Amino acid sequence: MLSARLIGRRFSIRTCQARFATAAFPPRLNSVAAQDLAHFAKILPPSSILSTLPPISSSPDELDQFNNDWMGRFRGSSTTVLKPKTTQQVSEILKWCNERRIGVVPQGGNTGLVGGSVPVKDELILSLSNLNKVREFDPVSGILVADAGCILQNLTDYVAPHNHIMPIDLGAKGSCQIGGNVATNAGGLRLLRYGSLHGTVLGLEVVLPDGTVLDQLTTLRKDNTGYDIKQLFIGAEGTLGIITGVSILTPPAPQASNNVILALPSFQNVLPLYQTVKRELSEILSAFEFIDRTSYDLAVKHGQGRALSDEEIEGAECFVLVETSGCKREHDEEKLAALLENLLESDNPLINTGVLSQNPAQFSSLWALREGVTEAVSKEGKPYKYDISVPLSSFKEVVDKTREHLRSKGLLHEKAVKHVLGYGHVGDGNLHLNIVADSYLSEIQNALEPYIYEVVSSYRGSISAEHGIGYQKTHALHYSKDAVSIALMKKIKNVFDPNGIMNPCKDNQPIR
Amino acid sequence: MLSARLIGRRFSIRTCQARFATAAFPPRLNSVAAQDLAHFAKILPPSSILSTLPPISSSPDELDQFNNDWMGRFRGSSTTVLKPKTTQQVSEILKWCNERRIGVVPQGGNTGLVGGSVPVKDELILSLSNLNKVREFDPVSGILVADAGCILQNLTDYVAPHNHIMPIDLGAKGSCQIGGNVATNAGGLRLLRYGSLHGTVLGLEVVLPDGTVLDQLTTLRKDNTGYDIKQLFIGAEGTLGIITGVSILTPPAPQASNNVILALPSFQNVLPLYQTVKRELSEILSAFEFIDRTSYDLAVKHGQGRALSDEEIEGAECFVLVETSGCKREHDEEKLAALLENLLESDNPLINTGVLSQNPAQFSSLWALREGVTEAVSKEGKPYKYDISVPLSSFKEVVDKTREHLRSKGLLHEKAVKHVLGYGHVGDGNLHLNIVADSYLSEIQNALEPYIYEVVSSYRGSISAEHGIGYQKTHALHYSKDAVSIALMKKIKNVFDPNGIMNPCKDNQPIR
Ligand SMILES: Cc1cc2nc3c(=O)[nH]c(=O)nc-3n(C[C@H](O)[C@H](O)[C@H](O)COP(=O)(O)OP(=O)(O)OC[C@H]3O[C@@H](n4cnc5c(N)ncnc54)[C@H](O)[C@@H]3O)c2cc1C
Ligand SMILES: Cc1cc2nc3c(=O)[nH]c(=O)nc-3n(C[C@H](O)[C@H](O)[C@H](O)COP(=O)(O)OP(=O)(O)OC[C@H]3O[C@@H](n4cnc5c(N)ncnc54)[C@H](O)[C@@H]3O)c2cc1C
Repeated sequence: MLSARLIGRRFSIRTCQARFATAAFPPRLNSVAAQDLAHFAKILPPSSILSTLPPISSSPDELDQFNNDWMGRFRGSSTTVLKPKTTQQVSEILKWCNERRIGVVPQGGNTGLVGGSVPVKDELILSLSNLNKVREFDPVSGILVADAGCILQNLTDYVAPHNHIMPIDLGAKGSCQIGGNVATNAGGLRLLRYGSLHGTVLGLEVVLPDGTVLDQLTTLRKDNTGYDIKQLFIGAEGTLGIITGVSILTPPAPQASNNVILALPSFQNVLPLYQTVKRELSEILSAFEFIDRTSYDLAVKHGQGRALSDEEIEGAECFVLVETSGCKREHDEEKLAALLENLLESDNPLINTGVLSQNPAQFSSLWALREGVTEAVSKEGKPYKYDISVPLSSFKEVVDKTREHLRSKGLLHEKAVKHVLGYGHVGDGNLHLNIVADSYLSEIQNALEPYIYEVVSSYRGSISAEHGIGYQKTHALHYSKDAVSIALMKKIKNVFDPNGIMNPCKDNQPIR
Repeated sequence: MLSARLIGRRFSIRTCQARFATAAFPPRLNSVAAQDLAHFAKILPPSSILSTLPPISSSPDELDQFNNDWMGRFRGSSTTVLKPKTTQQVSEILKWCNERRIGVVPQGGNTGLVGGSVPVKDELILSLSNLNKVREFDPVSGILVADAGCILQNLTDYVAPHNHIMPIDLGAKGSCQIGGNVATNAGGLRLLRYGSLHGTVLGLEVVLPDGTVLDQLTTLRKDNTGYDIKQLFIGAEGTLGIITGVSILTPPAPQASNNVILALPSFQNVLPLYQTVKRELSEILSAFEFIDRTSYDLAVKHGQGRALSDEEIEGAECFVLVETSGCKREHDEEKLAALLENLLESDNPLINTGVLSQNPAQFSSLWALREGVTEAVSKEGKPYKYDISVPLSSFKEVVDKTREHLRSKGLLHEKAVKHVLGYGHVGDGNLHLNIVADSYLSEIQNALEPYIYEVVSSYRGSISAEHGIGYQKTHALHYSKDAVSIALMKKIKNVFDPNGIMNPCKDNQPIR
């Protein structure tokens, strides 16, 4: 697996960097000033304070990585980054900022994809990177308690010798932090099998904006004593408080993984296939990924594995990658082989062909077809990417509708939009809708938005399946949440952060 | 499986019925009066209104089943029960009650075990039993959308022909409703495998106290658009609003289930055994239940199955029941047999013996040993029951401490406490601590409480793993939740229900 930083490079950087120029920044928030630095110096050692302000006078370059987001799309102009090592320090910092009305941006690995992790203006950046100790791990229950700043990969490595795995896995794992994962309610590759963080996170320690420490860092699987308040911080993107500790259930590591790629004559077959596969593989099914023909062709064109022969893919409208993970390889192989046999021998076969991986190299090359679509798309042109949830049955319809819409606008040709394609996690109802253009053009952008949000909304879908709202999608929140929900969110925000210091201008804050 | 009503009979009824005599009822709430009935008659047909007040004048007997809780411990004196058929009707009723400041108790199957589902005084009872339609089921994704008043067993039957099961199962399934399950965040027998309702509930429709309908009835597995507000209603026990619709993920039905009972020489072996079993059975493990020797002996004494011979149980300090569920019987049997062989042939065997069920009858008789403890305990004497979460490693310690404590108070003898025993869901960290007395005595009660809550608190455990707080445990909430959490709960309550009409005197309401 590539480290997240390497994978990051694959993404094409948009030429026009959105600089938050139009953000309606809350006027009542203050900038960090000399008196604040003097106070922070009483809380933290010098090595934990970066600031372009005197007397510290760090060079602006040193703050660059904190002010710029992963994609290079969003840039803030914070003067000051604090890196506390303890929950107590986080508490003292927030207490001060709350009294002084200084905006605070919690920053984990800064791998978020919606501009949530960098300041809009010159808010203080509170980096969790020094809060990075494992607090405890119980190999019997598999419950891990860790500081929020622990990097996901490090936690994965930590539990591995105990035969456990983290319940989440994602491309950014070399950089993203467990606190950031929780704050964004990250999905990733293991959601189909282990469910969302709302189920696997057992407890949180959170510093509230006024510095109060909310200690719900329990290691209990079951606790029905009052409202489950910690749930609100899962996916709140740092707008309600700063997560400093996470208690999470880690599942036993599977002993074996297998996969197979299936070529389908028609999208119509994807859903009956999913049903068959779920029935036959049941508890060992760990991925059911969909790639349409355009995605496949682009992956192959740009060298992302060449697992199937021309003959095998003839007449295929789309492909499905099935992965199993279980505790006994032979059993899993037997089940997969039986599935394939049944599929091929049926009177009305749902698939044209299927290729089973026979060794680790083949296993990886099958995955490369699916995982390589992202890279292929970036090599092919300038991608517009939408991470949406819609009913499984409408995956193709959404892609087709978008293509037709662009065609009707006269934008479907070599000099404008070259391809419209879809791939994603069928099991999670999560479609990655990609529009590959020759170059970024405002006509295309205007044809796509709000069009796609409206389409998503017409299916009662989600405009952000995984990545959150952040700064990028705040204006579009109403496509997925109705007025009643948004009004309640504002009230909840007000309960936790009446002064609006937490991650201003992100999410659904009342100031907007 | 017995229906819940039948199982209910097994419970012994406490002689001294707690009548809420001491409840500090909010003085600003009004009783239902003639003008209210006149208004309700505009919303509902006559068949949906029960009231002892004129002009309806139902006989008090008709209201008995709504005023009395399942255990016969708590009794309210409501005059009026409304049974709306639609969300719109629920909304109109709540709007009126909110304006008129009438307390409202949402009631599902009325199987709750903490006095949450019956009125404390004469609050209006809003029964969900007529809101009982399945709204939609997608056999591909397994997502079910149903009215809150659907009975759990009916939903289980509904999805069965599609080869799906409900992600929860509990003894009360013949009576309890999915809305009640969500409102109590019910655990039950499938939690180890499918996780909690916080993960499996995808969406909710809730009528807020002022009649506003919060529509978050999405059928999406992934949706990261703003705070996940629906989570607050999961386990809120009807104190924030009335759940009218539930969207829930149903897993594919396993094709086969097997079980084995293991006799252990020492409790010390339970945890290493749990680790071994988790490693070897991994994804097919569906239950890992613990029974201490006292529980076993009582189960056998009172005729709850006789699966093991005297020889087999000789020297056993406790027992573990392991269940597997998977999609291929032969594979699962092979794994279980291999596990047993490894366990028995080890140099330092963790178990004395193990008995594998060979057919459905044996399967049931092994389960009877574990499930029969509840009945056996009731036959043996008067049980005091505590449903707690503590770290797995301290299960025995908690039981032993309680026994010693009772001994030190001179209460451990045939005329006072006869047995102290523990059994429960190791996989969930959920211990059922039972104290079997000759009769209910205030000395015993006083020796047990707050002692047990203090012990639980010292382990950072939960005083209510599954059953909730309701009326019964409101006074003890602070043993599991600190002041910061309780203060936040009150603020949240105030956001949703500023007039305090929802289920007054239950949970953590500000009026107390
Ligand atoms: C290569 C790559 C692959 C990815 N794959 C996936 C994927 O498969 N699935 C998916 O869901 N996402 C994916 N993402 C996006 C995902 O949101 C992030 O990778 C990750 O979850 C964020 O963690 P982070 O520590 O980097 O948080 P940041 O980027 O630092 O922060 C993200 C948000 O959380 C807040 N935050 C961070 N830490 C805390 C804290 N301790 N307390 C409170 N708030 C905090 C920030 O203020 C910000 O709003 C991917 C990103 C990249 C670059
Ligand atoms: C034999 C038996 C076995 C049980 N086994 C288990 C078990 O294994 N695990 C477990 O966790 N629990 C168990 N329970 C208790 C469990 O809480 C209930 O069985 C069930 O979850 C409650 O559902 P209900 O519809 O009967 O709710 P009720 O008893 O009617 O109500 C319970 C609470 O929820 C509220 N409520 C009900 N419906 C709604 C609604 N639609 N909207 C808002 N609030 C509502 C009520 O006001 C009340 O506070 C058992 C109970 C019995 C009698």
